[in-house]
Amino acid sequence: MEPYEIIHKAREQGRSNLTEAEAKILLSFYGVPVVRESIVADENDALEQAGTIGFPLVLKGMGTNLAHKTERELVKVNLRSDEEVRQAYRQVRESAGADWEKCLIQPMVEGKREFVAGLFRDVQFGPVVMFGLGGIFTEAIADVVFRIAPVTKRQATGMMEELSSRKLLTDFRGEAAADREQFIRTLMGLSQLGMEHPEIAEVDINPLIVMRDGRVTAVDALVVINEDDSAVTDGAPSETEAEAKERVGTINAALDVMTHPKSIAVIGAKRSQGKLNLSIFDCIANFGFSGNLYPINPNVTEISGYRAYPDLRSLPERVDLVIISVPAPLVPQALRECVATENKNIHIFSAGFRETAEEVGVGLHKEIETIAQEGRLHVIGPNCMGLYVPASNIVTWPGASEESGPMAFVSQSGGHAQDFTKHAHNSFGINVSKVISYGNALTLDGTDFLEYLAQDDDTRIVGMYLEGIKDGRKLLRLITAINRTKPVIVLKAGLTDSGARAAASHTGSLAGSDKIWNAFFRQSGAVRVDSLEEMAEVAQALLHCGECSGRRLAVIGSGGGISVAAADECSKVGLYLPDLSPELVTKLRRFIPPAGNMIRNPIDHHSMFSDLDILGHTIELVSEESHADMFVISLHLDWLHEFSGHDESDLKRIAGYIATKARTYCKGKPLVVSWRQYADNPETHQWSAILGQALLQGGVPCYRGLSRGLIALSKLAEYHESLRANK
Amino acid sequence: MEPYEIIHKAREQGRSNLTEAEAKILLSFYGVPVVRESIVADENDALEQAGTIGFPLVLKGMGTNLAHKTERELVKVNLRSDEEVRQAYRQVRESAGADWEKCLIQPMVEGKREFVAGLFRDVQFGPVVMFGLGGIFTEAIADVVFRIAPVTKRQATGMMEELSSRKLLTDFRGEAAADREQFIRTLMGLSQLGMEHPEIAEVDINPLIVMRDGRVTAVDALVVINEDDSAVTDGAPSETEAEAKERVGTINAALDVMTHPKSIAVIGAKRSQGKLNLSIFDCIANFGFSGNLYPINPNVTEISGYRAYPDLRSLPERVDLVIISVPAPLVPQALRECVATENKNIHIFSAGFRETAEEVGVGLHKEIETIAQEGRLHVIGPNCMGLYVPASNIVTWPGASEESGPMAFVSQSGGHAQDFTKHAHNSFGINVSKVISYGNALTLDGTDFLEYLAQDDDTRIVGMYLEGIKDGRKLLRLITAINRTKPVIVLKAGLTDSGARAAASHTGSLAGSDKIWNAFFRQSGAVRVDSLEEMAEVAQALLHCGECSGRRLAVIGSGGGISVAAADECSKVGLYLPDLSPELVTKLRRFIPPAGNMIRNPIDHHSMFSDLDILGHTIELVSEESHADMFVISLHLDWLHEFSGHDESDLKRIAGYIATKARTYCKGKPLVVSWRQYADNPETHQWSAILGQALLQGGVPCYRGLSRGLIALSKLAEYHESLRANK
Repeated sequence: MEPYEIIHKAREQGRSNLTEAEAKILLSFYGVPVVRESIVADENDALEQAGTIGFPLVLKGMGTNLAHKTERELVKVNLRSDEEVRQAYRQVRESAGADWEKCLIQPMVEGKREFVAGLFRDVQFGPVVMFGLGGIFTEAIADVVFRIAPVTKRQATGMMEELSSRKLLTDFRGEAAADREQFIRTLMGLSQLGMEHPEIAEVDINPLIVMRDGRVTAVDALVVINEDDSAVTDGAPSETEAEAKERVGTINAALDVMTHPKSIAVIGAKRSQGKLNLSIFDCIANFGFSGNLYPINPNVTEISGYRAYPDLRSLPERVDLVIISVPAPLVPQALRECVATENKNIHIFSAGFRETAEEVGVGLHKEIETIAQEGRLHVIGPNCMGLYVPASNIVTWPGASEESGPMAFVSQSGGHAQDFTKHAHNSFGINVSKVISYGNALTLDGTDFLEYLAQDDDTRIVGMYLEGIKDGRKLLRLITAINRTKPVIVLKAGLTDSGARAAASHTGSLAGSDKIWNAFFRQSGAVRVDSLEEMAEVAQALLHCGECSGRRLAVIGSGGGISVAAADECSKVGLYLPDLSPELVTKLRRFIPPAGNMIRNPIDHHSMFSDLDILGHTIELVSEESHADMFVISLHLDWLHEFSGHDESDLKRIAGYIATKARTYCKGKPLVVSWRQYADNPETHQWSAILGQALLQGGVPCYRGLSRGLIALSKLAEYHESLRANK
Repeated sequence: MEPYEIIHKAREQGRSNLTEAEAKILLSFYGVPVVRESIVADENDALEQAGTIGFPLVLKGMGTNLAHKTERELVKVNLRSDEEVRQAYRQVRESAGADWEKCLIQPMVEGKREFVAGLFRDVQFGPVVMFGLGGIFTEAIADVVFRIAPVTKRQATGMMEELSSRKLLTDFRGEAAADREQFIRTLMGLSQLGMEHPEIAEVDINPLIVMRDGRVTAVDALVVINEDDSAVTDGAPSETEAEAKERVGTINAALDVMTHPKSIAVIGAKRSQGKLNLSIFDCIANFGFSGNLYPINPNVTEISGYRAYPDLRSLPERVDLVIISVPAPLVPQALRECVATENKNIHIFSAGFRETAEEVGVGLHKEIETIAQEGRLHVIGPNCMGLYVPASNIVTWPGASEESGPMAFVSQSGGHAQDFTKHAHNSFGINVSKVISYGNALTLDGTDFLEYLAQDDDTRIVGMYLEGIKDGRKLLRLITAINRTKPVIVLKAGLTDSGARAAASHTGSLAGSDKIWNAFFRQSGAVRVDSLEEMAEVAQALLHCGECSGRRLAVIGSGGGISVAAADECSKVGLYLPDLSPELVTKLRRFIPPAGNMIRNPIDHHSMFSDLDILGHTIELVSEESHADMFVISLHLDWLHEFSGHDESDLKRIAGYIATKARTYCKGKPLVVSWRQYADNPETHQWSAILGQALLQGGVPCYRGLSRGLIALSKLAEYHESLRANK
């Protein structure tokens, strides 16, 4: 039977599981090595087959209603004689009772190492392949990893390397290393099965036994098929390539208009309350928007010197962007007006929809969703801050920087859009090309904005704050592609509310959303960060540092305890401090005075304060003669303050030197500075800002504390590793 | 045979291992459930014993030189007939070759779940007991936990709960829950064995099989004995209780004199270079030391107005504290002078000894060690900053706070002593009772300072920065005791250089130093922190918050994304956000306006800015009617700035309200504030400091960022959990 026929037959019979025998036939079509086996219908048949297969062997009950075979004592192993086979047959038949149909008889596959492989469908990511430690330990130990299908050979290999118990795949207690090719074929086969047969809900192959000689064999398998036909479209593209291209083209064109509007109407525009608490309308007006700006408010004649209009219909033109800022119950009417007046590009600022999780809000959400879809509106929001584009002079909140920069930020949270951009600008001088806060994602979702930013010449790097996503597969595909030329940094929130997942097997139940997002990050190469602060720190490294060819770090610094701390911090983030060779130490000793200076890695020397050439020469020598792939200069500002005789110009001189000369000496390898400061000395309050600014001008990233610098460097290394792997 | 005889016999025979049979006899003395077994010397004997034991059974080769029995195919399992026993016997005999002595025959113990238990000796902590997932997976999965002996029943129970694979101890796939009492007896027995028999170097019981009915049986065991007699003293106290008490009394008296000196001599006192770069002598003089201060320097007649003396002999008195600050090569002579003049209390500031890891330094170290020991000197250092005691007006660095406070800090790093005290004072208003920076610990070690601080009435809380320790068991004993009344916070550095450990078994090789330090923290109840900053943050919570009865947290805050972030952060640190009951939500709704406010947990409402009574009433209701054990108020200073109409007095009013009224409303449960700020508004530069200060006055800890606040609260919860567990 062909795969389709096997599945079709089961579905016709109204079954949700394939039998074990059907499952193995299906899986062997997809390259999974399964144990050869025979179906036997009576005792004599069993004895005859036993003679053909040879002892020891295994006999199992078989039947469409037989699950939990081990617990029901329907699996008899290690049968070594006709008599044992006969007894086993009778016992199984009795234990199975009315559920009994036939028996399976197969050779006893022996091996100490058992793995599990599987497939299930995630609500966001579609078919997902699983691999892990199998046998009875699967659930108790939960050493399992995931990849979103389609799984490439490299990814299948990566799954094996990611297992904590990967040692079991090598030579093990006198047994040969596992045949990795068989595992790779199995994982890629499961991926292909998942892609080709949306009717397959779950597959659970457990155990996959590694035999003494390293060969891999599946001795049991569970295949669950969808009972519900509606699920069957899952995984299949809902539109043709041409349709998709057209849709993307339309959306990109719309977003291009919205981010460079020549005219904006604000429905529900209000006067600000005094000079504080600026209204959205005044935020835009104050930010220097030079196009036509129309406040829509039937109750006033003007706002901030702009003539007010009672409704969209009264406007002299169709506008490039409509911002809706009326209470939620009035939004449907406003949207209908947009449809009627053919104003299609809309940002809904108003909140009070699905996010309230209350009946009224959810109802309103459905209503505006229908209006937007039928009217083919391009909607950013609702419940969001919309657009901040310095080059177009648009922003909806006060206090935003007017400078344009290379980073785009796409955020589901409006608060985060404000916080991140302020923080990145103030702390690291990072400015933005476009910021899109999109809240509930009524029509336009994160993936649409990514498509747009992918081809936006003003954007060199993309940050993203994600709570959820409608189409995880699309997100994966897009970020994987964009990340090759524009690094994508993602802060994924809400990992802990994975929610319960109904599942008939290990595969589904072990797939917490965090583990699948782990797979997402490994596959896409997106840089994962833990906070907005970390996003800015990593962005700074990605913007200013060149390629990072490895994870070996040299630290040059000063201050107590730095050596011990550096080793601990490196080990936390997966960086290494290579030893310096005795030859190199001898060379360094020639110009680094011995008193109070340690020449190891970290190199702890204070002389850099007194003679900068020593610092430069150190970097140059270490860059040439050690195996360091990157550098950190660690400064203790309190100490620097003392050593420099409290002289601010000394700080500037040091910062300037590092920003220009030291950077040259490191020969293009990443170089960052980390600083510490504990004293509360009025004279040094501004020192960190002065240092940061001077370094920034020379393109040297600067971090508060060694730990933050090392995290940024490890993410930089990770990004370049993923680039090399995806070449 | 008694345990002593078994060990004695092996030692007499020059063996480093007990035989499997000896090992089992020894272990069964200590309560380890071992499989009953027989030693057989020939084939007929084997068949006869097989008849007595019954099938299935196991036959193993036995011999003093037989290791790696599985790999050498010397273990035959599941033998079911006389014929199989006969064959197995012959095969084993042949495989063992010249190493063969006898065979062991035992019933086949069957169970799906295999554990490992063991004992080994750590160089710092002495006998350490291990428990973990056993069988063939022990090394590949390394799910093992440790406790430093002696292991109490509660600690043995804790070891089981700490295993990742603890699910295997419960009902499992039709097999009964493991008999925990048997495991507890085994672990406590290993502990007792380790304490009573220092000759035992290692024990490795693997597997400890859990049978179908839950009973536990050890089917194999390895016992390694020390070949070297010098190791045999390990674990035994080197002094009597009375001797120890006298020693502690002497040291405490000396430390009391040193921390409250009436006279200090500084050997190698120098003039400061200008007003900057203060010398140690000037640091003390400037800090207002009111006792007799003697600079010792033969080349000058006075320093800073103090008459200089050429040497200790010339002083008019014996001094309470001698500080030695001469180059390392001159330190031995200075120490000899101390001995000659009976000046016994010494701080050696000078560096250049063992820490250089160079021959000259190591040699000098040995020299001064001998002088100090022979002269019965009390030495703090060398290579350290010594003492900082505000109440006695002594400190050796510039910029220290003159205020006394409740926290002592003991630090191996002098840099950290300065950094921590400045940071704790500046950021959290935490001042110190005594700071001891002790560097290389020539005679006085961290444990000595702890003994002193334990009985110091000025110290309510102790911080400790540790790189290494001479006597880990003493440290454990001391901290466990002190921690009951004075919380001890420890920053342990240098966890990653665990170094290779020669080991004949799993037990030793799996014991990375980090895992043993984990055991140390669990057993002592000391609060573990990751950085100096975290130490100050946690100290603030411990100083100001009362008992924390659980890990359920209510967050009341404002600002975008706080709900999602709070859930993620809580899950990272093991805190919980209990749902609010519908009744409670209804009550809160009565006075929290619906617009823009979410009544969940976190409760996200802006109205606290406009009407503080709403905030107070919220806390009061949640404290009474939810299950929250503690509270965080999360403030977004940028938003507060806007909502308050940029009015600083509003901030002060809010801070004051929280510090007094809100704290009352929370009914003694811990309450902390976390703040965020991203805008770089000159008006708000000082807002966080103003907030912090106002809260501090009311004893409310204040943290930058939710994450830092939650970490501090989780450590507070951890501390009180350990107090309750140790009651």
